[in-house]
Amino acid sequence: MRKIYAIGIGAGDPEHLTVQAIDRLNRVDVFFVLDKGAEKADLVRLRQEILDRFVTREYRVVLAEDPPRDRTPADYRAAVADWHAARASVYESLILSSLSPDHTGAFLVWGDPSLYDSTIALIEAVLARGNVEFEYEVVPGISSISALVARHRTTMNQIGRAVQLTTGRRLASGWPEGVDDVFVLLDAHTTFDRFTSSGLEIFWGAYVGTPDEILIAGPLTPALAARIRSTRAEARERHGWIMDTYLLRRPAD
Amino acid sequence: MRKIYAIGIGAGDPEHLTVQAIDRLNRVDVFFVLDKGAEKADLVRLRQEILDRFVTREYRVVLAEDPPRDRTPADYRAAVADWHAARASVYESLILSSLSPDHTGAFLVWGDPSLYDSTIALIEAVLARGNVEFEYEVVPGISSISALVARHRTTMNQIGRAVQLTTGRRLASGWPEGVDDVFVLLDAHTTFDRFTSSGLEIFWGAYVGTPDEILIAGPLTPALAARIRSTRAEARERHGWIMDTYLLRRPAD
Repeated sequence: MRKIYAIGIGAGDPEHLTVQAIDRLNRVDVFFVLDKGAEKADLVRLRQEILDRFVTREYRVVLAEDPPRDRTPADYRAAVADWHAARASVYESLILSSLSPDHTGAFLVWGDPSLYDSTIALIEAVLARGNVEFEYEVVPGISSISALVARHRTTMNQIGRAVQLTTGRRLASGWPEGVDDVFVLLDAHTTFDRFTSSGLEIFWGAYVGTPDEILIAGPLTPALAARIRSTRAEARERHGWIMDTYLLRRPAD
Repeated sequence: MRKIYAIGIGAGDPEHLTVQAIDRLNRVDVFFVLDKGAEKADLVRLRQEILDRFVTREYRVVLAEDPPRDRTPADYRAAVADWHAARASVYESLILSSLSPDHTGAFLVWGDPSLYDSTIALIEAVLARGNVEFEYEVVPGISSISALVARHRTTMNQIGRAVQLTTGRRLASGWPEGVDDVFVLLDAHTTFDRFTSSGLEIFWGAYVGTPDEILIAGPLTPALAARIRSTRAEARERHGWIMDTYLLRRPAD
C-alpha cells in the first residue's frame, strides 16, 4: 500500500520541526512540491534547507505546477472549489505517476496542515476520486499563529475568553460577535485599518521565525496602522512576497 | 541576568517536541514544576520521560505547591485573578530562592504556552512586581487542538470560514455567532450535550498523542453524545484524571 504524509514543517524557523516530523521525513521516498511561482523562491529554498538539514536518506523531489487560481472571483467559495478540483487532479497524477506501490510520499506544509491549508482536503479529494489507494497520516506543526504570539510573548486568549481565527475577507464585514481576540490570516488588504481608534491592540508579524522577521505591536492607532501598512508594503516589495498574520485584541479590562 | 523559558512540550506525545524546544531544554539549569496534586502523577511521569529522553546535561527540578483554586466561584474571572496573584507569589519565590543570577530556569507547558495556559501571564506578573529581573523567551509547542485535528485527519477551518476557540463555560451560553467550527477547551461538563440533533459533527479526543489516546468522531446524535459521555466518565475513573478537547463543526454545505 502507498503511504502519504502531510507534514507540518512550522512557520518558517527550521527549529520548529518536531521529532515526529523529522522521523516521518526520514521515511519518505518522494516529496511532492507544488510550484506556486517564482515569487516564492525563498520558501522553496527554505524547504530545501529543511530537507538538507534533517533528512539522512535518499529521496526524490517531484515538482508540479500548481493550477492557476482566479484571485478576483465573483463567488469566492465556488472559485476555491473549482481550484481545489483542478489541484486534486494534479495531486492524483503526481501520486499515480511518481509513487510506486509500497512507497511513501509526502507533502510538506508550512505551519500546521490543519490551519487554512488545503493539503488535507486535497488528499481526501484524491481518495474520494477512487483511482488510487493509499494510507495517510497528518503530522501537526507549529502554526503561524502559535509562532506569532510566542515571538510577541503573549497569549492567544485572555483569561476565560474566546478567540476567533478568521480571514481578512471575513473581518472586512465587521468585528466578530462575542470574542476579544481575533487572529487574521490570508489578509492581503491590511483590513486592520478599519479598526483603528477602537481601543484595540495589534500584534503583527511578517516572516515570523525567519531571519527576515518583522514584529510590530501596540495600541492600534491610525499612526501604528500606517506604520504597519508601510512596513508591509516595503517588505513585500523588497522580498517579492510576504507571509504575515496578526492578532487584534480588545483588552477585557 | 537570569533567563527563563516557557517551553511548549506538546500535547502528550514526546515526539511533539520541536528542535527549538530540545535546544532550550539543554540550556536549562533549573526546571520549575508546579505540583497540581497526586491525580496527575501520569503527567509528572510523562514530563520526566521527556527530560530523560531529550536532556543531555545536568539539571535540577524544583517542585512547588500550586495554590488551591476555588472551583465554584460566584465571580469566575475575579476568582481566577486571585488565584493568579497567589500563583505569581509562588513563581516569584521559586525564581528568587532557586535560580542564581546568570542561571537559566524553565517552565514546561503542555501543549502551547499561548493557549489557555497561565504561564506567560504569571511570568509577566512576576516581572511587574519588580522584585526580580530576568529575560524570558516563549517556545511554541504543538497545541492540544492541533494534535486533535491531526489525529482525526481533519482541518480546523472549512474553506474560507472562521473558527472559534472557547471554553465549556462560554459554550454553555449558546453557539457562537458567525462561526462554523468551534474548539472547546477546559470543558468538565460535556457541554456538547446541549447541541445534539443540531446537524453538527463532533471530533473528540482524550489523552491525544499518548498510548491512552481515545478518538471519537461523527454526527453529533444523542447516541454519539451519550457514547462520548460514558467513554469519558469511564476513562476519567480509570486514570484518575482526564485531558480532553473537541471540535464541533457545522458543515458549511
